[in-house]
Amino acid sequence: MHVIVVGAGIIGLSTAWNLRRRGIGVTIVDPAPAMGASHAAAGMLAPAAEVVWGQSPLYPLMRASADLYPDFAAELTAVSGHDLGHTSAETLVCAGDRADLASLRELMILQSSAGFDVSLISVSRARDLEPSLAPGVCGAVTIPGDHSIDPRRITGALISVLGDDLVRACVTSLLKTSGRTVGVELDNGTRLSADQVIVAAGASCNDIAGLPTLPLRQVWGEVIRLRAPQALAPLLTRTIRGLVNARPVYIVPRTDGELVLGATSREDGRSGTNAGGVHQLLRDAERLVPAILDCEITDITTRARPGSPDDVPIIGRIDPGCVVSTGFFRHGILLAPLGAGLTADLATRADTAWAPPGSLAAVGPERFEAEHPPAETQNAQQHTISIQQPAGSHP
Amino acid sequence: MHVIVVGAGIIGLSTAWNLRRRGIGVTIVDPAPAMGASHAAAGMLAPAAEVVWGQSPLYPLMRASADLYPDFAAELTAVSGHDLGHTSAETLVCAGDRADLASLRELMILQSSAGFDVSLISVSRARDLEPSLAPGVCGAVTIPGDHSIDPRRITGALISVLGDDLVRACVTSLLKTSGRTVGVELDNGTRLSADQVIVAAGASCNDIAGLPTLPLRQVWGEVIRLRAPQALAPLLTRTIRGLVNARPVYIVPRTDGELVLGATSREDGRSGTNAGGVHQLLRDAERLVPAILDCEITDITTRARPGSPDDVPIIGRIDPGCVVSTGFFRHGILLAPLGAGLTADLATRADTAWAPPGSLAAVGPERFEAEHPPAETQNAQQHTISIQQPAGSHP
Repeated sequence: MHVIVVGAGIIGLSTAWNLRRRGIGVTIVDPAPAMGASHAAAGMLAPAAEVVWGQSPLYPLMRASADLYPDFAAELTAVSGHDLGHTSAETLVCAGDRADLASLRELMILQSSAGFDVSLISVSRARDLEPSLAPGVCGAVTIPGDHSIDPRRITGALISVLGDDLVRACVTSLLKTSGRTVGVELDNGTRLSADQVIVAAGASCNDIAGLPTLPLRQVWGEVIRLRAPQALAPLLTRTIRGLVNARPVYIVPRTDGELVLGATSREDGRSGTNAGGVHQLLRDAERLVPAILDCEITDITTRARPGSPDDVPIIGRIDPGCVVSTGFFRHGILLAPLGAGLTADLATRADTAWAPPGSLAAVGPERFEAEHPPAETQNAQQHTISIQQPAGSHP
Repeated sequence: MHVIVVGAGIIGLSTAWNLRRRGIGVTIVDPAPAMGASHAAAGMLAPAAEVVWGQSPLYPLMRASADLYPDFAAELTAVSGHDLGHTSAETLVCAGDRADLASLRELMILQSSAGFDVSLISVSRARDLEPSLAPGVCGAVTIPGDHSIDPRRITGALISVLGDDLVRACVTSLLKTSGRTVGVELDNGTRLSADQVIVAAGASCNDIAGLPTLPLRQVWGEVIRLRAPQALAPLLTRTIRGLVNARPVYIVPRTDGELVLGATSREDGRSGTNAGGVHQLLRDAERLVPAILDCEITDITTRARPGSPDDVPIIGRIDPGCVVSTGFFRHGILLAPLGAGLTADLATRADTAWAPPGSLAAVGPERFEAEHPPAETQNAQQHTISIQQPAGSHP
């Protein structure tokens, strides 16, 4: 059996590696491997802190993937010889002001009720743990189980393992025979055939001809990488997340001293680095850790994350020869081991009993095929706001 | 006659071009031509707006160089065929709040008394001129004579004209014979000889062995380049300078739509891009032109400007074979025609009667050779603060 994986981000690469370990031949096609959303990602393995309202189908997936991570990382480290920058330091979630603290308390109840180990600690205790916290921080939650890893090191390790199977080109379309995908066509005209094609092209899936249009949003965001001056290093030993005037912000300290500050979310379709996004990140991070402004900016990365309508990934079979795996939004790094396993199982028609019950249903693309248009759409006309042009205005 | 010019920034290049036009052979040596302070510069030709307290020796120099600019730019455009991005749009200086307006009024009196054409205009008039100004702006001064030009285009044009005479290497030391500079040694071991050596290496002059130590400060600064989205372009048609909580900030619109936002000043010796500097620029610019946050950041450049103790350039003869030309701080672009002329005159022992009276005395390095140490230094011991270690503290 031979499988073509379209896309060499964290999902495509980890799926290809999963298949390879099953003894299946793979070819991975990407014009710029690991330079998409994975290149921007901060790498928080945060099943608890990522629990937010209205995304209950996501919680068991995040928990299951977090549970898979230690083995996933250990195996990849062993086979590649790469240090993945994994750290089991806890996460501290901080409140910028009293209103943010109220939100944090409510969120903590939700996270607790989802079965995660979270606890409110005093500000003085938080400051004992992280002396760089701002005087204005007025409450904190510890999440011992939320760790972090370096996504650029993971993809680097995966590429070192899979490099021989990597084709640097862009897939322009799926090749079909009688409704079955049988291969792909590249932008250089080359045609590759395979028993199965896995499309894991992140936010770019809808650029591939022959694939049904997926309900993907491009959610752009800026991420700033920094380095503390020698006199302040290490500035942080834990991941600091926070709510600042209700806006989420995080600072992830890497084992090599790098600090990753993120992440904005915008859907304006603009691929450039937004000045307002950079401003927001620095301003909000300063509220939690003032010394962030004494650091050196080493990198600003702007990328589109592939968002689905419900922020749950889209993994499923499209036709007898094609499986799609995308829509991981801001959970791609955490969900990689689970997503890779489910995707590889679908491609090989293997059993997914190892995954949490209902996983495939939760991620299946068919969940968006509503039988009837929702009531709001039917009644839309009643809500139309009529705009009257003043007399004599432009005809 | 043959002259070696050490440094291919705006000063070294324009000096070399000046010499070339006199029929003199030149060799310019720089490891990275035009990538120092000139690469960061915004290119304001602002003799009036740069008038600040306590720098009276600078005013006639700035005025004289501004007067030289039209011919300088026209000749360089003609000989190179390059568009230099010169615009004669006026400068608007805006006040962030009432206190800033008070400072602006006082500054305007100084600028007027120095003979420049500046006038206070109403906020509504300012907003007529530049609709992007923030509602909070509470006063503005117009300076019709302050224009701008693109420094990267100037150096590009000069390099295109002088490229055959450019050696990409680093000068490590001056070669001397009986106290006279006779050439330079490069980092690749090559030795070049010349009748005269001009050291115009900006903030790096003190890295060159054999040159007396100059009283240069490295004044680091961040400059952000932006581009407005199509819907907002052109965001500005004039250079916007401002005082925001007493901090200076400027936004220079380029003829090609680029916006140059600067500039911070720090002397911490750190060559990296400072997060606090980027934050300050975006925060203060937003106070004057809120839509700056809707723009795309295309570039952040951090460079050291060569500052002298009194912010006036240092141009003078060091020995019979060597002339130095540095210390232009944030006036390098504006002062290039004047500085190049004075430096070339010194190197060729030509007459400088064309320059404002007292120019050479104002820029001469000998002005820093004080006869006696200042009183403060002599009495420094009286001001020593004694810090008592508490009993039992670290030994």
